[in-house]
Amino acid sequence: MKNKTIILSSRPKGTPTQDNFEFTQTDVATIEEGEVLLKALYISVDPYMRGRMSDVKSYVAPYEVGKPIMGGVVAEVLESKNEKLQKGAVVVGNLPWQQYVVHNGKGLNPIDPDMAPLSYHLGILGMPGLTAYFGLLHIGQPKEGETVVVSGAAGAVGTVVGQIAKLKGCRVVGIAGSDDKIEYLVNELGFDEGINYKTTVNINEAVAKACPDGVDVYFDNVGGEISDAVYHALNKFSRIAICGQIAFYNNTSPATGLRVEPILLKKSVLMKGFIVNDYTSEFGHAAKELTTWLQEGKLQYQESVKEGFEQIPEAFLGLFSGENTGKQLVKVAEREV
Amino acid sequence: MKNKTIILSSRPKGTPTQDNFEFTQTDVATIEEGEVLLKALYISVDPYMRGRMSDVKSYVAPYEVGKPIMGGVVAEVLESKNEKLQKGAVVVGNLPWQQYVVHNGKGLNPIDPDMAPLSYHLGILGMPGLTAYFGLLHIGQPKEGETVVVSGAAGAVGTVVGQIAKLKGCRVVGIAGSDDKIEYLVNELGFDEGINYKTTVNINEAVAKACPDGVDVYFDNVGGEISDAVYHALNKFSRIAICGQIAFYNNTSPATGLRVEPILLKKSVLMKGFIVNDYTSEFGHAAKELTTWLQEGKLQYQESVKEGFEQIPEAFLGLFSGENTGKQLVKVAEREV
Repeated sequence: MKNKTIILSSRPKGTPTQDNFEFTQTDVATIEEGEVLLKALYISVDPYMRGRMSDVKSYVAPYEVGKPIMGGVVAEVLESKNEKLQKGAVVVGNLPWQQYVVHNGKGLNPIDPDMAPLSYHLGILGMPGLTAYFGLLHIGQPKEGETVVVSGAAGAVGTVVGQIAKLKGCRVVGIAGSDDKIEYLVNELGFDEGINYKTTVNINEAVAKACPDGVDVYFDNVGGEISDAVYHALNKFSRIAICGQIAFYNNTSPATGLRVEPILLKKSVLMKGFIVNDYTSEFGHAAKELTTWLQEGKLQYQESVKEGFEQIPEAFLGLFSGENTGKQLVKVAEREV
Repeated sequence: MKNKTIILSSRPKGTPTQDNFEFTQTDVATIEEGEVLLKALYISVDPYMRGRMSDVKSYVAPYEVGKPIMGGVVAEVLESKNEKLQKGAVVVGNLPWQQYVVHNGKGLNPIDPDMAPLSYHLGILGMPGLTAYFGLLHIGQPKEGETVVVSGAAGAVGTVVGQIAKLKGCRVVGIAGSDDKIEYLVNELGFDEGINYKTTVNINEAVAKACPDGVDVYFDNVGGEISDAVYHALNKFSRIAICGQIAFYNNTSPATGLRVEPILLKKSVLMKGFIVNDYTSEFGHAAKELTTWLQEGKLQYQESVKEGFEQIPEAFLGLFSGENTGKQLVKVAEREV
């Protein structure tokens, strides 16, 4: 049985390309006592991974050149010599971009295949859903009747942010990069307004028009000039959750532009950066509430799925050209059991 | 009895000059039922006033051209037809830059002349002291053993911030613009380290060296490149209170430079702008605690006092060239009673 792995062959300078990745092939190793053999079913590609491809200190350690890329993976236990994980179980964990993985079981979370589609655990019930939940509810603290703006609105995090904000009784405005995405946000997910930043000539005016009572909460996935437009419409005591700054992930030098500090001062604004792991102690409660909302039909969920292990680099690169609507992932194999 | 007033004769473009102010002279009006005649004793000049001289919407309304500048003033009641304010009482309030003021009494706070020197109510027991208190304790939330950095450290707010942080058991580093100021902060006020940003060649290195365990709380009075140097040393979960952005008050277009958002994201930093009036409901408690600390000798306080009503514009302009150590004010007259 052959086993393909994707390694980081070189660090990207600016926007990543296929050249930064290399496919290697080995035999599948045999497992020893305490270990399991996993088969990857779904592999997640996420914007934050770009940060780990650079050799800079960040909130997670950089990937090593010559080593596999790691990320969220749903996998099936094919063989087990670990009493805690039965053959046929499905787990989610931080795993290499690899078809078959020998693993000691530590840090793998078993998932219930009957609760929701398996892939949901890489999205709405996984890292992106939890990210939306904590950033919006803990930092944004939206109140009924307030206006919430989310950038990167059609992505894995943004779609959940907007829907939770609607559940909380807010006016919700999404910023995204195509008319199809805007239509999806407004017609399928119930957003009040959408702004296509790629075709809108004056985005400041568009934000002001979409938010006649100003902006109370801004959930920022992108940064840069899109954020600047939202800053102009902030209300006194508004809150900004900084979740992503994809505008700058491919920068080779520190980002420059409008200084936000004078704006924060003028309007007594709170701005907070975060990553989902800041809230690990509350994951259980949050996942339960998300699951309930999903089962009650209060949350819609959409995935962009590419098929085949070979598609992983392309799926990842597409994140930076705004290709995906909803959570981007790659289906690598069918479940056996 | 002649009565001099300083009016805003034109809006400053960039740094204010004497030409933006005009002295007018009138007779002192007579008071009617319910009114008092006030004589200004001490007039406060503060950096935030620069903002009000521009014709832009901000947290307080702009001054009107042709009308008096308003600000914090300690005044004596010379005559009274208001039963709540006796002749001889001393009050603090938001009043015009004027020698004698006819006033209906609303919004004037009587002060106890035995509690502390009268002028202290424009400084450590007034707006700057309360600003330091709330920004540091409510936003910064310093914990024992943490490192607190304050910029504009030798000013009316910065000197109080640093001392309260020391009371809370923190390592305190002040950034200011002269060796005299640094010496004062370290030798008189008990700061652990000071950085003279005007003579330090590499301020990033200086901050890193002064904060070997990184920065947990940054109280920012200045903004700009000084702040950028502090941003490089921020710890995970650090807090930044944005109190002033004097670097940009004289800007004629929105400030640009390093974007702080990616840094806030990487380190899960909280940044919050504020003005003291965000905390009005808690002024009483805070003023009491500050008074206690002052009376117990736990807080030192220094003023820069210019003498004479005519010196007000110069005292104000000096704020922007870094002239003052401690609270800048102008003594206008002696108390009569």
